[in-house]
Amino acid sequence: MRKIDLNCDCGEGYGIYQIGQDEKIIKYVSSVNIACGLHAGDPFVIARTVQLAKEQNIAVGAHPGFPDLMGFGRREFNMTNDEIYNLIIYQIGVMQAFCKSQNIQLHHVKPHGALYNMAAKDMNLSRAIVRAIQDLDPQLIVYGLANSKLIEAADEINLPYASEVFADRVYLSDGNLMSRSIKGSVHEELENSLEQALTLITEGKVKCANGEKITLEADTLCIHGDNANAYPFVKTLRTRLQDLMINVCPVGSK
Amino acid sequence: MRKIDLNCDCGEGYGIYQIGQDEKIIKYVSSVNIACGLHAGDPFVIARTVQLAKEQNIAVGAHPGFPDLMGFGRREFNMTNDEIYNLIIYQIGVMQAFCKSQNIQLHHVKPHGALYNMAAKDMNLSRAIVRAIQDLDPQLIVYGLANSKLIEAADEINLPYASEVFADRVYLSDGNLMSRSIKGSVHEELENSLEQALTLITEGKVKCANGEKITLEADTLCIHGDNANAYPFVKTLRTRLQDLMINVCPVGSK
Amino acid sequence: MRKIDLNCDCGEGYGIYQIGQDEKIIKYVSSVNIACGLHAGDPFVIARTVQLAKEQNIAVGAHPGFPDLMGFGRREFNMTNDEIYNLIIYQIGVMQAFCKSQNIQLHHVKPHGALYNMAAKDMNLSRAIVRAIQDLDPQLIVYGLANSKLIEAADEINLPYASEVFADRVYLSDGNLMSRSIKGSVHEELENSLEQALTLITEGKVKCANGEKITLEADTLCIHGDNANAYPFVKTLRTRLQDLMINVCPVGSK
Amino acid sequence: MRKIDLNCDCGEGYGIYQIGQDEKIIKYVSSVNIACGLHAGDPFVIARTVQLAKEQNIAVGAHPGFPDLMGFGRREFNMTNDEIYNLIIYQIGVMQAFCKSQNIQLHHVKPHGALYNMAAKDMNLSRAIVRAIQDLDPQLIVYGLANSKLIEAADEINLPYASEVFADRVYLSDGNLMSRSIKGSVHEELENSLEQALTLITEGKVKCANGEKITLEADTLCIHGDNANAYPFVKTLRTRLQDLMINVCPVGSK
Repeated sequence: MRKIDLNCDCGEGYGIYQIGQDEKIIKYVSSVNIACGLHAGDPFVIARTVQLAKEQNIAVGAHPGFPDLMGFGRREFNMTNDEIYNLIIYQIGVMQAFCKSQNIQLHHVKPHGALYNMAAKDMNLSRAIVRAIQDLDPQLIVYGLANSKLIEAADEINLPYASEVFADRVYLSDGNLMSRSIKGSVHEELENSLEQALTLITEGKVKCANGEKITLEADTLCIHGDNANAYPFVKTLRTRLQDLMINVCPVGSK
Repeated sequence: MRKIDLNCDCGEGYGIYQIGQDEKIIKYVSSVNIACGLHAGDPFVIARTVQLAKEQNIAVGAHPGFPDLMGFGRREFNMTNDEIYNLIIYQIGVMQAFCKSQNIQLHHVKPHGALYNMAAKDMNLSRAIVRAIQDLDPQLIVYGLANSKLIEAADEINLPYASEVFADRVYLSDGNLMSRSIKGSVHEELENSLEQALTLITEGKVKCANGEKITLEADTLCIHGDNANAYPFVKTLRTRLQDLMINVCPVGSK
Repeated sequence: MRKIDLNCDCGEGYGIYQIGQDEKIIKYVSSVNIACGLHAGDPFVIARTVQLAKEQNIAVGAHPGFPDLMGFGRREFNMTNDEIYNLIIYQIGVMQAFCKSQNIQLHHVKPHGALYNMAAKDMNLSRAIVRAIQDLDPQLIVYGLANSKLIEAADEINLPYASEVFADRVYLSDGNLMSRSIKGSVHEELENSLEQALTLITEGKVKCANGEKITLEADTLCIHGDNANAYPFVKTLRTRLQDLMINVCPVGSK
Repeated sequence: MRKIDLNCDCGEGYGIYQIGQDEKIIKYVSSVNIACGLHAGDPFVIARTVQLAKEQNIAVGAHPGFPDLMGFGRREFNMTNDEIYNLIIYQIGVMQAFCKSQNIQLHHVKPHGALYNMAAKDMNLSRAIVRAIQDLDPQLIVYGLANSKLIEAADEINLPYASEVFADRVYLSDGNLMSRSIKGSVHEELENSLEQALTLITEGKVKCANGEKITLEADTLCIHGDNANAYPFVKTLRTRLQDLMINVCPVGSK
C-alpha cells in the first residue's frame, strides 16, 4: 500500500499573538513542525502545540529558524557554519525537552524559512545542520526540499531524511521553487494545488514553470497553515487520498 | 574527608557583549551555572562556555532565568506556575542539548536572579520548578538557597538537591539574604568574605546581620564572577581549603 | 453642545503578527493610541497605523508600555522612576518622529497595560511619566484613568489631561477598575456596556460593583479593539450619541 | 585655520552590558554617534550617553542600525526601502527625544555597521535613508563614507553631509574599505594609523592597499571606541593636530 506524510508548520504564535489555524489543520496532517522560540514560538506556545500534536497522535518535529522574530525567520542571515551548528543545537534541544516533558519522542527536524531556502542550495550550510541533528539524535529524520543540498548532506552521513514537496508552489526545472516574490509562483486555484499534490504523490512528478515534467521524490507534502485555503485543501486532499487507497502517516512509520 | 562544591555563574555574555571573567574563575571552581539564552547567553556563548567547562572537567549546570535581557533576569515577573514550568523546560532543554553535543552530562539546575529569589520564598513556584526538572531528568541536582522553599520542594519529591551558601552576602536570622538594595548587604572586605566562607564550610554556621549565629547546610558555595574581587577571593579560598584538607568537588561526586 | 472623545488602542501587531481590527474600528473613534515598539509595534506597523489615522483625520497618541513583547506589556516591571522617565522619552520620541514624517502633530500620550494600572495608583511613578511628557512637549494631553494618580500628577504640573472611562469594565467604589482576573469584571452583554457608556458620558456617573453610584469625569471613552464585540459596540454607540446630539471629537478640539 | 571633526561611536551597551570606553574617549572627540536601541543601547544607556556628551559640550548624532542585538547590527538584512525609511525614522525619533529632554539639538546621523556598509554601495538604499533624515529635520548632517553613495544621495537632495575617513582601516583604490574579514585590513600599529589620519586631514589623501594614493574628502575622522588602542591613539592625535594648528570641532561649527 502506498503512503505519504502530510506535514504542517505549527506553533508559530508568540505571546498574545496567534497565527495559522493549528487546531483545525492538525486533524488532517500526520506530522507537524513546531517553531522553537527564535523566529516564532515561546515556551507556552510550544508546550500547547506539542500537547495538541500528542492528542492527535501525530509526529512532532522541530522547526528551527533564524533568530529574527520581527522578520519571522524569512530574512537571510550571514552566519558562520559553527554558528549555524549551535543555532540548530539550541532549537532542537528546546523541542526535545518539550517532547520529553510530555512523554513523546521528537521525530524530525525541518529548517524554517530563509534557513530552509539557504540550506537547499548550500552544501556547507547543510552539513552544519545535519551534523547538529546527528550529534543530538541520529534517529531524527531531516525534512528537506526534494533534490536539495540538505537531502544530499543528510545522505552523506547516513542520517535518515524525507524529501519534501509542495502542492501550491510552482517548480523550476532544476527542482527548486520559484521565488515567492515572482508573480504566479503560488497556485491560487485549489484544483491546481490538488492536481500537483496528487501527481507528486502518485507519480513522483511535477510539471514545471516551463512546461517540463520533472521527477521528484515525495516522502512528505507541506501544508501551509497560514494559507487561507489550507483547510479546504487538506480536507479535500485527504478524501482523494483515501479514494486512492494511499495511507497518510508520518515518515518512517510502518 | 570533608568536601565542598564551589559554583560560579558563567556564560552571561550575549552577542559581542562579554561579562564576568569566565576563563580565569573557571579554573578554581568545581561547577558552573550557564545562562540559557533568555536573560543572558546566546547559542554561541553557550557552546563556548560548555566547552570551557568540559576542558576544565567541572560540572555543568543550567541557569534558567526570566526572559528579560534588558533587566538581566533581575526583575520580578508575574507568571502562572504553568508558565514557569514551561520556562524551565525550555531552558534546561537548551543546556541538555549543548551538553549532549559535547558528550557530557548536565549535572544540575540553579535558577537565576529574580527567579532564584522568588522561588526561595514561594512553595508553589518552587514546586513548578522542581517538577520541570524531574520531568526532564530525575538525576539533575537542584541548587537552591540553603533553608529555602526551593530546597523544601525538591526534598518533597525526592529530587536530589544542594544547599547553597554565600560568602559575600549578609544573612538575616531567618536564613534569607539581606536585599542587595540595602547598604552594607555585601561584604566589601575580602577577609570578611573568606571568614564567612570558611565558617560556613567547616561549621555550617553564619553570623547574621543582628549578630545571631545560625546554622545552614552548606553543600555548595557561590562565587560571583561579576564581582571584581572574585578572582583573588577564589584563589585564596582554594589555598585555605587545601590547608584544611577540604576537597573541592561537584555536589554528588565520590 | 456636549462632546466626548472615543479612543482606541491601535497598531498592536508586530512583524507578521496582526491583532485587533484597526481598519474597521478606526472609522468610529476620534483618537487612537499607537504602540511604540516595546510591548508591541515595529517601525513598519507604526508607520502604517499613523497613516491610517491620518487618512481618517483623527488624533494620534503615543501608547508607551513596558519592554515586554512576550507579555504584551501586561506584566509589572520594577523600575526606578528615572528608568520610567527614560522609557517614556524613548517611546514618545518614536511616535513624534512618525507623526512628523507624515506631517501631523502628536496629540496625546496614554500609558499601556501594566504601566497604566501602576501609574493609576502610584504618585511618584505618575510624576516620572508626566515629567517626561512635559519635557518633550507641554501641549501633549495625558490620557489617564479618571480619578487616578496619573491625572493628579498631570494637574500638579499644569499639563493638559483627559479623564478616561471604560464602558465594558466594572468599577469599584473608589473609582478603580475591578481586576480583569476577577470573574465578572468585564461586561459580556453589549447592552450593559452601552448603558454604562451613555451614563458616563451624559451624567458623569457609573454604577459600581457594590451598587453604589459614583461620579467620574469622562473626557474620553476607551474602545477595546481586541474585544470581539468592539465593532458592533462602537457602531451602535455612535448612533446613540448622534441621537443625543453628542459630538464625537478628540479631547481639546473646538 | 584648518579644522577636522573627530567622531566616535558611543552608548553601545545594553542593560548591564558595557562596551567601549565612552568616558575616556569622549573627552578627546568633537562628536559622538549614539546607538538608538535596536542593535545596541536601551533607554537608560541612551540617556546617560547623551548626558555625557552634553557635559563635554560635543555634538550628538543618531547612530541607527539594523534590529539585531545578537549580531550587533553587523549582519546584512534584506529590507525594502520603505522598511529602511521607517527604520531610520524610528531611531532618529528616539535620539531627537533624548536630546530634547536634555535641551540640546541633535546634530547628525551616521548609519551603523552593515547598514553603513550597504548604504555606501547602494544608491536606492541611501536615498531611503537621506529622505527619512530630511523629513525629520533638513538641518541634520549625514555622516557617510567619503566618496560613497550615501554622500551622493545626500548631495542629490541638498542635505548637509560630512565625508568620513578612517585612520585604522586599509583603503581600496576605489575609495572603499578593505573588508574586516581580510587579514591585514586593519592597521595594528598606532604609528600607521596616526600617519594615515594626518595625511587624510592635511592632504586629503590616503595610500591604498595597492600602493596607489587616492584623494578623499575628510570632514570627520572615525575613532573606534572598541579598539584597545583607541585611547592612546586619540590622545596622541590631538597633540599632533594641536602642533599643526588644526582645530578639532564638530562638522558645520564656525
